[in-house]
Amino acid sequence: MTSSDLNPLSKVKLRRFVKLQEKKYRDQDGLFLAEGLRTVRELCQNIPDESMLLALLLREGEIGLGGFPEIPEDKLYVMNSEQCSLLSSTAAPQGVIGVFRQQQVSRYPCGFKDEKKGRSLLIALDEVQDPGNVGTILRTAAWFGADALICSTGTADRYNAKVVRSSAGSLYALPHYTVERLDLALEELAASGYAIICSSLDGEDFRSFVSWPQKQVLVIGNEANGVSRVVQNLAERLVRIPHGGGKSRVESLNASVSAAILMERLVL
Amino acid sequence: MTSSDLNPLSKVKLRRFVKLQEKKYRDQDGLFLAEGLRTVRELCQNIPDESMLLALLLREGEIGLGGFPEIPEDKLYVMNSEQCSLLSSTAAPQGVIGVFRQQQVSRYPCGFKDEKKGRSLLIALDEVQDPGNVGTILRTAAWFGADALICSTGTADRYNAKVVRSSAGSLYALPHYTVERLDLALEELAASGYAIICSSLDGEDFRSFVSWPQKQVLVIGNEANGVSRVVQNLAERLVRIPHGGGKSRVESLNASVSAAILMERLVL
Repeated sequence: MTSSDLNPLSKVKLRRFVKLQEKKYRDQDGLFLAEGLRTVRELCQNIPDESMLLALLLREGEIGLGGFPEIPEDKLYVMNSEQCSLLSSTAAPQGVIGVFRQQQVSRYPCGFKDEKKGRSLLIALDEVQDPGNVGTILRTAAWFGADALICSTGTADRYNAKVVRSSAGSLYALPHYTVERLDLALEELAASGYAIICSSLDGEDFRSFVSWPQKQVLVIGNEANGVSRVVQNLAERLVRIPHGGGKSRVESLNASVSAAILMERLVL
Repeated sequence: MTSSDLNPLSKVKLRRFVKLQEKKYRDQDGLFLAEGLRTVRELCQNIPDESMLLALLLREGEIGLGGFPEIPEDKLYVMNSEQCSLLSSTAAPQGVIGVFRQQQVSRYPCGFKDEKKGRSLLIALDEVQDPGNVGTILRTAAWFGADALICSTGTADRYNAKVVRSSAGSLYALPHYTVERLDLALEELAASGYAIICSSLDGEDFRSFVSWPQKQVLVIGNEANGVSRVVQNLAERLVRIPHGGGKSRVESLNASVSAAILMERLVL
């Protein structure tokens, strides 16, 4: 199929979709935009059910949806270059944009408390502000089989264009949601048997722990300030990633790198 | 000190510095730009000697260089908003820009062959294209005490604005350089006792290795295609990071995340 067979994108739809660049309208409509062939394809491949894809927009002249599952024709639209630029968040748009429905997650209480009898890993983000970090952590959490991602209100919006891009199609791979008070959510999880583990530059070398709890929440803090004091106070363990060879030639690790190393150590 | 005490940035200097946004001029002059209070401060703190800082530019009205080492007054300049926008690579510049000299590294042969009698870890990047990944890998390599970063010619330029930002001031923390032929450089390292370890989705679970060589080069491949075949053929080990719990809900890990997890396992 080529783009010339498709319905043109109407002005009304364009206006509606452009608004999704703002969090306010994303939340109001429960939708988000994803951009780029690879990101959109991976989202389509991992979609929990077909209704989560609202529309797939191809720039005129773009051909082919190689590797995509079959998309119903009434969801396919062609857009001109100007429409594509309006919808895109990048300087050189790839010409493929998807409009998807946000995950529906029962927000709070978490719902993991009684379901999981065995091992369980949850990830909590305490004011992680860089969208690239949030998306990368989501992707890594999906890889290591985490059961959910819980975000504080000051954490970058999970449907921001940069988060979507860096999550590499993992936005449907695990439940993720925002809680009004991260400390209260963690208290409740602690009461139901989860150990709270905080990443901290002042924590103990993770190699000093010989085993890890069956049910744990790994908390990753803000890029500049780390995990907030009130959350640290709930922690059963504060853990630190040691330097190699004792050398210290850089102040800290990137937040998504710390998260990945700790997830791997907690899970593998 | 406030910016009103400083020398204004001349048109000649502005023109020269703006050119550093292009790799061609960066390489020609052996200079690079760094932007933002934190990045510039960390570079100044880690500078191997004072002459590596050529100029520090503050937007008019900006005050203070808190946490900076003392900067000689003849290196400090004030720029107006327009000059700052011309020099900046971001939409909302922070108003602090540093002009630094590039590391002087004897390029090839690597120079690690006979110096290191004990343990040694080198990192090699085989066409890693995302600047954020290159900068993050540099930062992580500095954290884990790697001895050098070796880049193939198709790897993102290490002095690109996004690399500088994501490296978080670690550009002076270890030697890094580009080689014309990564395979030849690795062959030479192998001949002098380095084991070549490639990250690969088709490799062996890293947990199946009980120990790691004293001297090793970890190779990280291109984001979409992995390590090139010719380099894989030189590898003593191909290693894979396993999924947690056997679940596979995402295709791959981010390249800088894979690099970090493997560095940590090879070193700690």
